[in-house]
Amino acid sequence: MTGFHLNLSLLTPGHFRQAWRLPHVDPRAHLDIGHFERLARAAEDASIDAVFLGDGPALGPGIENAPGTGLDPLILLAHLSGSTDRLGFVITSSTTYNSPYNLARRFNALDHVSRGRAAVNIVTTATPAAAANFGLDRHLDKETRYRRAHEFLDVVTRLWDAWEPGAVVGDRASGRYADVNLIHAIDHHGEFFSVRGPLPVPAGPQGRPVIVQAGGSEGGLGLAGEFADVVFTVAQTRPKAVAFRQDIRRRAAAAGRRPDDVKISLGVVVLVSETEEEARRRERELHGTLPLETLAAAVIADLGLPADAFGPDDVITVDDLPDAPPQAAFSVGFSESTRALIAERPMTPRELVHRSAGGSGHRLLVGSPARIADDLEDWFRAGAADGFTVMPADTAVDFENFTRLVVPILQERGLFQKDYPAPTLRERYGLPRPRQATTVRPPLTR
Amino acid sequence: MTGFHLNLSLLTPGHFRQAWRLPHVDPRAHLDIGHFERLARAAEDASIDAVFLGDGPALGPGIENAPGTGLDPLILLAHLSGSTDRLGFVITSSTTYNSPYNLARRFNALDHVSRGRAAVNIVTTATPAAAANFGLDRHLDKETRYRRAHEFLDVVTRLWDAWEPGAVVGDRASGRYADVNLIHAIDHHGEFFSVRGPLPVPAGPQGRPVIVQAGGSEGGLGLAGEFADVVFTVAQTRPKAVAFRQDIRRRAAAAGRRPDDVKISLGVVVLVSETEEEARRRERELHGTLPLETLAAAVIADLGLPADAFGPDDVITVDDLPDAPPQAAFSVGFSESTRALIAERPMTPRELVHRSAGGSGHRLLVGSPARIADDLEDWFRAGAADGFTVMPADTAVDFENFTRLVVPILQERGLFQKDYPAPTLRERYGLPRPRQATTVRPPLTR
Repeated sequence: MTGFHLNLSLLTPGHFRQAWRLPHVDPRAHLDIGHFERLARAAEDASIDAVFLGDGPALGPGIENAPGTGLDPLILLAHLSGSTDRLGFVITSSTTYNSPYNLARRFNALDHVSRGRAAVNIVTTATPAAAANFGLDRHLDKETRYRRAHEFLDVVTRLWDAWEPGAVVGDRASGRYADVNLIHAIDHHGEFFSVRGPLPVPAGPQGRPVIVQAGGSEGGLGLAGEFADVVFTVAQTRPKAVAFRQDIRRRAAAAGRRPDDVKISLGVVVLVSETEEEARRRERELHGTLPLETLAAAVIADLGLPADAFGPDDVITVDDLPDAPPQAAFSVGFSESTRALIAERPMTPRELVHRSAGGSGHRLLVGSPARIADDLEDWFRAGAADGFTVMPADTAVDFENFTRLVVPILQERGLFQKDYPAPTLRERYGLPRPRQATTVRPPLTR
Repeated sequence: MTGFHLNLSLLTPGHFRQAWRLPHVDPRAHLDIGHFERLARAAEDASIDAVFLGDGPALGPGIENAPGTGLDPLILLAHLSGSTDRLGFVITSSTTYNSPYNLARRFNALDHVSRGRAAVNIVTTATPAAAANFGLDRHLDKETRYRRAHEFLDVVTRLWDAWEPGAVVGDRASGRYADVNLIHAIDHHGEFFSVRGPLPVPAGPQGRPVIVQAGGSEGGLGLAGEFADVVFTVAQTRPKAVAFRQDIRRRAAAAGRRPDDVKISLGVVVLVSETEEEARRRERELHGTLPLETLAAAVIADLGLPADAFGPDDVITVDDLPDAPPQAAFSVGFSESTRALIAERPMTPRELVHRSAGGSGHRLLVGSPARIADDLEDWFRAGAADGFTVMPADTAVDFENFTRLVVPILQERGLFQKDYPAPTLRERYGLPRPRQATTVRPPLTR
């Protein structure tokens, strides 16, 4: 059995954002590098493929109630690459608020210093708070953001490819260091960017860092089909996940790629304890921390329903829903995922908040280690995913409970690797090394 | 005796860029993280304050002959912060090709994850090659670059200060995480930037990362007086260095700061071996690698002299020089430094290339460990500097020769620390923690 991949989210205090209120949690843990170093070691001891961090460059709403966005993930994970040997790093970066040259160069550097363990999770960033930190009165509309993201990835991948193998000659006797005929300017002039290139140094061990894509809108899916090595997605129901995976594989084929060259990593929030009873007790405890009214209102708004139409315990049926997710939804993927849940069975806003892990949007999976392993195995065997991005409900407990209790079961069943089978993340995911399309480029001239 | 600080440059293969041609040097060492990890450990074992990397976001000229700009230094040094405990990191970043919000956030993160060991070396980047990677037809003129740098640092320092102490409340019982009256938007609207702020997280252990400034032009000196904690500078002659230090201290006082609150770190290229003879032999060997004609032509151009007026062995006197460094000089600081050398004694372009470490522009210091230590002590006691940024001539040899052979002498003389006296770089440099000017800011509203 191949292709079962596991990433673990480092989000702290957890995907239940109010987990900081529990007595065993340090409310400042998201600023404590010692905390992250412990998690990274636990992940590496369990042969986890990569750790993951989401991001948005702004102080989000709700800081009164919980820590939101944390430390810049590129810096945090570059640091962790220095205290680990095999663990991979999936780092969320915005195509709207970075320049492609800087981003290409930074991930090139991370690929070198981590010896092939770098992945970039491309997002377009949809919040007005971020726009205001970068000189924009309001954030770009979705269509424009994805057009920019497309051009951005085109530039970045060409920069990563611009040194052909053999460009570094290093002939001591003649003093010839490099063959400039094998180092290409990209001379890009597009709608959003003009970039001459090349990068100052050749590609790292992966050729290109792994590209992860997380948006579920039409623009995001188009980007995924063309550029993504891994698609990080959300699904509350198995049929929806299976259909999504088939759709992405079709899109990759339509873009001239092999369907197996794009992997689906399904997000799932995990709350796991040694016994079912203890897991349920902890679930009740976490639910007790939630600001239910606020979260219920957010769920209702994301479904496109009127703010005062449903109380927390009023049942929503599929007939109550509008024909499609609202344009203003925070995320089309999350909104569609919630709709699928209601289509299975009518639910109250309170249930929806609980089932989506306190409003994180992802499916909540609670129970004993065997129950968690059974669930992941079932979804995997049903073709719902090539692997999972596991998001701890309460990171202080569930991160290490997952690595210590669930991973060994998956390993014993022959589903998950007992050791790292290859040094680079790209090889471990079973992804090809992209070929370089060098022939179309002009040689570097100065 | 306090105030003798030592930084070490990681530039690879060395400040003699052609050092890669020597038989013991790996021509790809600048891409090898193992190489940098060994250097970082050697530096930390010697209680070196910080390692340093210059930078420019472009493939520079001369890749035919030598590796130029290397890996992105922010990523490389963030990685090294994960495999060291006490060593500081001085990382060159461009104010012209970064956005202030991203830069402020990344150095805030580095300060957290390194536990107070982050310093940013601010440069404005003067090369057309960099401009072409960021959508500019030609690079901004110097005056505009420094006006932008000034506004940039104003924004960055205010972002670093925007969370007042005590803003994180973390009251588990009430669920109140933060006091929004102590977290301030900066609401900046200037000539170059509009930035709302604040950062998503509070300041790190240093309050603000250390700010280093390296430009010797009038714009750079103005910036140094107002913002710099450390000024990194070049001088070929001691009187020039003493005068420069006095000038910077006066500028700091004029900006309302204490003169002792800005430290001068003087660049010096070091070639050191156990014996004087061996050092001289290695110097001849390194000189043999130089493309002398090219480097002599560059020196002549930087002095503002006609290209064909002087051969490599024609003597240049002070009377040959124009009244001031040319506007087109790569660096005013380097050009003035070379002028001072010629004013001391007439010299040929060949001598100038040798004395400036193969065209690096900095003073070359060659000899036995005792000779190197004597020189640094003399310059320090003369008031030429508060410390040195030591740049290995051939990094594969001189980095560890310096830490292993020269540092112990400086320690025995009571000049340099035998152990790290404080955890943060700011404290070790003897710099104050800047006070936060919170009263002028509007409270954060959403």
